[in-house]
Amino acid sequence: TTRDTGEGGSQLSTVSITVVGASGDLAKKKIFPALFALYYEGHLPEHFTIFGFARSKMTNEELRTTISSTLTCRIDQRENCADKIDKFLQRCFYHSGQYNSEDSFRQLDIKLKDQEAGRVASRLFYLSIPPNLFVDVARSASRGASATQGWTRVIVEKPFGRDADSSAELTNGLAQYLSEEQIYRIDHYLGKELVENLSVLRFSNLVFEPLWSRQYIRNVQVIFSEDFGTEGRGGYFDNYGIIRDIMQNHLLQMVALFGMEAPVTLDAEDIRNEKVKVLRSMRKLKLEDVVIGQYKSHVKGGVKYPGYGDDPTVPKNSITPTFAAAALFIDNARWDGVPILMKAGKALHTRRAEIRIQFRHVPGNLYKKLFATDLDLATNELVIRVQPDEAIYLKINNKVPGLGLRLDKSNLNLLYSERYNKEIPDSYERLILDAIDGDKRLFIRNDELEAAWGIFTPVLKALEEKRVSPELYPYGSRGPIGAYYLAAKYNVRWGDMGDN
Amino acid sequence: TTRDTGEGGSQLSTVSITVVGASGDLAKKKIFPALFALYYEGHLPEHFTIFGFARSKMTNEELRTTISSTLTCRIDQRENCADKIDKFLQRCFYHSGQYNSEDSFRQLDIKLKDQEAGRVASRLFYLSIPPNLFVDVARSASRGASATQGWTRVIVEKPFGRDADSSAELTNGLAQYLSEEQIYRIDHYLGKELVENLSVLRFSNLVFEPLWSRQYIRNVQVIFSEDFGTEGRGGYFDNYGIIRDIMQNHLLQMVALFGMEAPVTLDAEDIRNEKVKVLRSMRKLKLEDVVIGQYKSHVKGGVKYPGYGDDPTVPKNSITPTFAAAALFIDNARWDGVPILMKAGKALHTRRAEIRIQFRHVPGNLYKKLFATDLDLATNELVIRVQPDEAIYLKINNKVPGLGLRLDKSNLNLLYSERYNKEIPDSYERLILDAIDGDKRLFIRNDELEAAWGIFTPVLKALEEKRVSPELYPYGSRGPIGAYYLAAKYNVRWGDMGDN
Amino acid sequence: TTRDTGEGGSQLSTVSITVVGASGDLAKKKIFPALFALYYEGHLPEHFTIFGFARSKMTNEELRTTISSTLTCRIDQRENCADKIDKFLQRCFYHSGQYNSEDSFRQLDIKLKDQEAGRVASRLFYLSIPPNLFVDVARSASRGASATQGWTRVIVEKPFGRDADSSAELTNGLAQYLSEEQIYRIDHYLGKELVENLSVLRFSNLVFEPLWSRQYIRNVQVIFSEDFGTEGRGGYFDNYGIIRDIMQNHLLQMVALFGMEAPVTLDAEDIRNEKVKVLRSMRKLKLEDVVIGQYKSHVKGGVKYPGYGDDPTVPKNSITPTFAAAALFIDNARWDGVPILMKAGKALHTRRAEIRIQFRHVPGNLYKKLFATDLDLATNELVIRVQPDEAIYLKINNKVPGLGLRLDKSNLNLLYSERYNKEIPDSYERLILDAIDGDKRLFIRNDELEAAWGIFTPVLKALEEKRVSPELYPYGSRGPIGAYYLAAKYNVRWGDMGDN
Amino acid sequence: TTRDTGEGGSQLSTVSITVVGASGDLAKKKIFPALFALYYEGHLPEHFTIFGFARSKMTNEELRTTISSTLTCRIDQRENCADKIDKFLQRCFYHSGQYNSEDSFRQLDIKLKDQEAGRVASRLFYLSIPPNLFVDVARSASRGASATQGWTRVIVEKPFGRDADSSAELTNGLAQYLSEEQIYRIDHYLGKELVENLSVLRFSNLVFEPLWSRQYIRNVQVIFSEDFGTEGRGGYFDNYGIIRDIMQNHLLQMVALFGMEAPVTLDAEDIRNEKVKVLRSMRKLKLEDVVIGQYKSHVKGGVKYPGYGDDPTVPKNSITPTFAAAALFIDNARWDGVPILMKAGKALHTRRAEIRIQFRHVPGNLYKKLFATDLDLATNELVIRVQPDEAIYLKINNKVPGLGLRLDKSNLNLLYSERYNKEIPDSYERLILDAIDGDKRLFIRNDELEAAWGIFTPVLKALEEKRVSPELYPYGSRGPIGAYYLAAKYNVRWGDMGDN
Repeated sequence: TTRDTGEGGSQLSTVSITVVGASGDLAKKKIFPALFALYYEGHLPEHFTIFGFARSKMTNEELRTTISSTLTCRIDQRENCADKIDKFLQRCFYHSGQYNSEDSFRQLDIKLKDQEAGRVASRLFYLSIPPNLFVDVARSASRGASATQGWTRVIVEKPFGRDADSSAELTNGLAQYLSEEQIYRIDHYLGKELVENLSVLRFSNLVFEPLWSRQYIRNVQVIFSEDFGTEGRGGYFDNYGIIRDIMQNHLLQMVALFGMEAPVTLDAEDIRNEKVKVLRSMRKLKLEDVVIGQYKSHVKGGVKYPGYGDDPTVPKNSITPTFAAAALFIDNARWDGVPILMKAGKALHTRRAEIRIQFRHVPGNLYKKLFATDLDLATNELVIRVQPDEAIYLKINNKVPGLGLRLDKSNLNLLYSERYNKEIPDSYERLILDAIDGDKRLFIRNDELEAAWGIFTPVLKALEEKRVSPELYPYGSRGPIGAYYLAAKYNVRWGDMGDN
Repeated sequence: TTRDTGEGGSQLSTVSITVVGASGDLAKKKIFPALFALYYEGHLPEHFTIFGFARSKMTNEELRTTISSTLTCRIDQRENCADKIDKFLQRCFYHSGQYNSEDSFRQLDIKLKDQEAGRVASRLFYLSIPPNLFVDVARSASRGASATQGWTRVIVEKPFGRDADSSAELTNGLAQYLSEEQIYRIDHYLGKELVENLSVLRFSNLVFEPLWSRQYIRNVQVIFSEDFGTEGRGGYFDNYGIIRDIMQNHLLQMVALFGMEAPVTLDAEDIRNEKVKVLRSMRKLKLEDVVIGQYKSHVKGGVKYPGYGDDPTVPKNSITPTFAAAALFIDNARWDGVPILMKAGKALHTRRAEIRIQFRHVPGNLYKKLFATDLDLATNELVIRVQPDEAIYLKINNKVPGLGLRLDKSNLNLLYSERYNKEIPDSYERLILDAIDGDKRLFIRNDELEAAWGIFTPVLKALEEKRVSPELYPYGSRGPIGAYYLAAKYNVRWGDMGDN
Repeated sequence: TTRDTGEGGSQLSTVSITVVGASGDLAKKKIFPALFALYYEGHLPEHFTIFGFARSKMTNEELRTTISSTLTCRIDQRENCADKIDKFLQRCFYHSGQYNSEDSFRQLDIKLKDQEAGRVASRLFYLSIPPNLFVDVARSASRGASATQGWTRVIVEKPFGRDADSSAELTNGLAQYLSEEQIYRIDHYLGKELVENLSVLRFSNLVFEPLWSRQYIRNVQVIFSEDFGTEGRGGYFDNYGIIRDIMQNHLLQMVALFGMEAPVTLDAEDIRNEKVKVLRSMRKLKLEDVVIGQYKSHVKGGVKYPGYGDDPTVPKNSITPTFAAAALFIDNARWDGVPILMKAGKALHTRRAEIRIQFRHVPGNLYKKLFATDLDLATNELVIRVQPDEAIYLKINNKVPGLGLRLDKSNLNLLYSERYNKEIPDSYERLILDAIDGDKRLFIRNDELEAAWGIFTPVLKALEEKRVSPELYPYGSRGPIGAYYLAAKYNVRWGDMGDN
Repeated sequence: TTRDTGEGGSQLSTVSITVVGASGDLAKKKIFPALFALYYEGHLPEHFTIFGFARSKMTNEELRTTISSTLTCRIDQRENCADKIDKFLQRCFYHSGQYNSEDSFRQLDIKLKDQEAGRVASRLFYLSIPPNLFVDVARSASRGASATQGWTRVIVEKPFGRDADSSAELTNGLAQYLSEEQIYRIDHYLGKELVENLSVLRFSNLVFEPLWSRQYIRNVQVIFSEDFGTEGRGGYFDNYGIIRDIMQNHLLQMVALFGMEAPVTLDAEDIRNEKVKVLRSMRKLKLEDVVIGQYKSHVKGGVKYPGYGDDPTVPKNSITPTFAAAALFIDNARWDGVPILMKAGKALHTRRAEIRIQFRHVPGNLYKKLFATDLDLATNELVIRVQPDEAIYLKINNKVPGLGLRLDKSNLNLLYSERYNKEIPDSYERLILDAIDGDKRLFIRNDELEAAWGIFTPVLKALEEKRVSPELYPYGSRGPIGAYYLAAKYNVRWGDMGDN
């Protein structure tokens, strides 16, 4: 993963980053701050240009004023912060245009060239716009503002369609103007830390890989929960629902990373090859293996928390699920018969994203004979927590020291985040940096997308055709009871119901 | 492992403990304090009697005075300490006699009966005397002072002979007067914590047992080092040397516990059956697989530390080893080809006793291709430390959080001793309590002893017949260079040379 | 396992074999012919003496006449056969006496000494008598006719009691007069071939042992069926029933041999230690895991086959089972959760004794996706056939050669009995030879017996206390339907219902 | 793998097969006979056309006469043979033209259309010509005679270049005119039987896959030997040598098939993906891991067998190897450290092509202790024989039946070719049929080719640059001694030196 901007070449090469949809919320809150953080840390090339592009009229200075309010320096970077911000803003510009207009992008091209000033210039377009505009921008930008000497890359964010068909349509639409190599589909939950930690743990230690299969693992749980609802911003969400919004992409990506075979190398394409193989080995999800829910209003401590239907941006009588649980299976030699339980929901009692791996019981357990307690429940469990606070820990049984024999449960932290006091970078920083570096490990390939939709599309269709009503659950609760029955059907107990 | 002293029966039953050799150092420093600690903790039966027995004349009060100076209460037991000590001393008595005299023991019997006062009495004899007296005392005590209703048990301490023949002779000598069930051979390094922790870890967790074999383990190191020499008390030691004193018993016991197959139950006999199987599967040690050393004087920081030969109690020109390293092999399916390296020495740079398990390298290591560092050296390692501070930890590779991919090594504490602030009982307490309870898990059976001598006797004979000279090493050093070559011969690097 | 009859020693040492119960059927049909075969093959020491002992009066010549009719020479041994028989009979004698009379055995002792003629003589007593006489004979023989210089050994045949208590009583009774080393409890179904073949296959080949566990094995079936009934000799049988007669000993022994861990050596005691461990790990059999049956009369091809109740030696309305099926479990690490199905019956459609090991399905079976056929049924199966025709074969799936992809099932013969045209010796020959050689591998030790009864005694008691009626099945049929339901309860299909 | 020639469609669709280089030896001996066999067996579509194409002038009748002499009917197909041959020949035509002439192919196109008569026609070109003509024909044929409605496919035969560079050049040359999907690179040693048998064995049986790794396999040997030399046809061969001619393609393909991970499905692309992964994991071959040889003349039984240099078509003083042995390694988790030995040679003592898998020794072998024989040598071995007589067999140790314990070695035939008396089709038949069916499982993909050259190119360059002289070995011998030393260096014994 060499950088295009080598030592000697820095004088002669440059990167231009255009944030398409610069006036949007995401751009302000995440993209510009991430670009600044990369600049501050020295991850951007010596010469670079940042352009905001949107329909609204704005001057360069107006843009700078807008974004300057969101730029912050980290605790360990207070020095020269204001100075750095100034320098960064000097490299930010604004261009107003239409998304479907080749001309607008040709004008942008002129301004970019002006800034690039004869250097070998590569160009990155960050499409922070609704998906229905993706193909328009791809066409206009590729025709009007492609790099001539360096590379041209485009970052797009989900949703990538609503089902297999619409996703294929979008893929084909983009493919008319961009090669697959140029497209960077972001799944920003795919934190590089998780990916690389998991890989490091499995593949650089001898002691984990032997346990990584159906022989030792009883079930896998991928859990995502938010402790807040749509809160007046449910309009977009209602069109997708929790399965499309969280499960089919974020949670499925986590399953693929967790379950994949060892890649032939650590190269992005090799890792993505293995991820696709896992996805292709997965059984299509069936209606009877899904439970959906929707949160309703709830009064607690005198406060009334609104239901999903109370959100004014949500259509009346919407049956869009804000919660879903699903049982999935990977029909390959490694995972045959191991239930992969997924759960995602809004307005639940806690905020977390994690993978929990429950190990099988100890065969012929010697201690079972000695004790009355159900040691089958006391199986080992490996928890990979993505948020809050990235961590990996293993639950084991040990003996309480002293005369007599009493067993206890301990958590072994496999990753001592407390050891490392460096602030962990935001996922946008990583992803933008990776796109500049051409590292596609954390981006989703078209065949991955296709395989992912293949698993979920049938059940999405069935839910809509049969207009299945979600089970209502109170705001702030643990979600629908149905999720427990679904787990019980496959002999699983949700691991997130205890204290950790 | 039910206790003989049940609730209702406590009024009617009693235990009498006779410390034979009561005037010796061990008795004062370890045995009486351990008996008191058991009493304080409520582990002794409601009624009990303690007799000191030795050749010297002494009154009960003199005994009490002598031992009272060594009794202490633990930090969390300060309350009523003096009161408890008083009550305990009231149950201590002294009887003077000859070790080989049945009469002496008959007189003791009368005094014991007097104290037992018609209760169902069991009797424990703790033989804190030189081994050449064992058979005499066994004869006299069993004939003169055996319990009539309860059990009679005898604790003996090593050395159990100097080689296979003398050990067999001792075993046969004792067997004339005591059944194997009555004999409790102590190896007090065999801390119950270690045994039971190891068993709990391996057999109550699913994640360790799969790794416990030649398939994953590259070598095992059993290391014992003291940071002091004989210090004027080398007379006894010189007759045995480090191999007999430490290796053939303590270290070998640790290997047996570590390497045994799962027992059919946790009963003492079942565990000992498995330990014997391991010992019987071990190859006889050969001379070329042993390195011996002897410490010489060394001046450090202006202080002169004396050599072994400087100890006035040591014979001139003694070639008794104070250090030995050996390479052993267990020729069974689980351990075939895994070198078991042992190292024991006095006057070394550190004090420790531990088992280190070095795991194999990761096959087809993906990270090897990416990094210049020798990841083959960075293999996982499991360390079971017996002293100082019992602990079990696993060394793994993990990723340093942040942008970029840097690997690091962490220690996972598998047993958080810091979690448990209870003071860990002395091994003498455990062992005496176990003898009273009839729990033989931590005592050595005659066939174990025979198998253990079988491994070491040939090399001991060869060393003596050939009068092999030990390699001299400075007091406080890391021991003879030869130990490194021996390890290298089997492709092993000693794990205790780093910082942990 | 050195033989007592070394080269030089043959002149000076001798073995005397006394068949107690010489007038019985077994003695005539099996024991004397086996002794002759051993003689013919040169396995008996150069000098030996055989005595028949029974209550009836008989001369030596009468005995010789009786047994001569049952002696045969094998096909490859026709040469000098008559000559050999003559010589053998010259070493056969008869002594009449009472089983409980020390005097009778003292008289025998005199005759034995006469034949032994001053040689170092060892003595083997083969107790071919009802079990209620065992203790009497043990007492009389050990007191009246023990060897003075060589060893004295006693072979006894099952039944060894009717349950845990009566078996313990018998064990204790024998133990008064004989040490455990002297007692040889025969289970003549324990063919040495099976034992040693199984051991050779598992422990001298790398390719089988990895498969020998719950990880790969789905269930184990131990099947014994006879194609004839009691046929007028049900008197003895009715007192025991099929569970005691076949299951608790023969079939359980086969399970123990099959399921044991690797012994530390191939010595008899080490193998028996492992067998005991398996038996002690087995769960006590419960009533709901047993199905019992009794055959009824059946007309086939115009022939009427009599029911069990039609046997005049069987009590009216007997509910003694002539068929039983049972589901057993070994609760250790290797076999946890693997159903061990047993089935034994008389008057069934076929004669066979075999162990069938059904392997699990292939996880993530690639071929399942391609074919309509249920490849889960087409799992591998290992069959160890004890009779008729000892054989071990493995069923595998292979491709039919040619264009296109069709799968087929093959039987791999792991033991090409056809390769070896030597007649396989009768199990009595082996067992008697082993007793002479002191090889106890194939004999049952007292703790084995105790463990075996421990498994079956509760269910035997329950059957009798509740007077459970057996399910009737027609003579010559496949047995009660209940056996299928029992198997189905544990998700097992009997493997002996197909063509092989 | 559906056939293009469905029921209803057979009237309307057709396939035209053009054998480019029709006057060559291969075409006559292999291609036309294979086409006829496919026709006879009913594997060709109802309507088809076969064209011979070459530079020489010939009439249709002349072609028919030429090829008719090589057509034969199989033993089980004697019926109507002559009739079938006649009908087949009626569909064979000839067209004379230049290989690099678009015009020639346009004329062919006209003739083809004439025969196709308006049906939906697909076209297959079999390039039976020297590789330097491949790109010319690809251009001319694709431009002049591509199918308009059906597919167009081109079969090419090795050699695909002389090294990585020339191979890439050829690949790129073809890629200008044909997509990768259209190109079918034949390796006709890749018998479908072997591929599919190996897959069936590994993936449809539970008992083989667990053994398929470095844990159980000690080394792998891929052996190809011919018992004849170049025999006056060494001109072509001398330009390539045995490494390019046999090792880099045939033997390496066998390794890839043997060593690959389980594919996600049995589809051609999935299998080829896995093959590429194996090849990419292989270490580049080094000069010190190669031994080369050249056969010299040898007189045996009065017959003089000529040396390679005696072949008049071979340049004087050629150092082209006719024999090579190499040690290769697959650096992935499954095969790390397992030597993959290859050996290929002409004029050796026997003719065979096989893979031999030698298993590790049994750890803690119980039988080793009992016997004097070196049981470490008596390890299990799996032999996959491609020719002569396809077979798969496993060597195991078993017990010789009878009293006493003697071990023996047996061969277990895993594929009873004798069970199936159908003649196994020639590999040309399979490959042509697969090309018609679009099944690319047995053809080599461009990335496979690239990876394969990557392994061998460095050593090929080194051999040529250093002009390494081959070790001479007598015609009909077992090859150079160096091959034994190379094996010994990696602790391997060639398995083909014994009797099977």
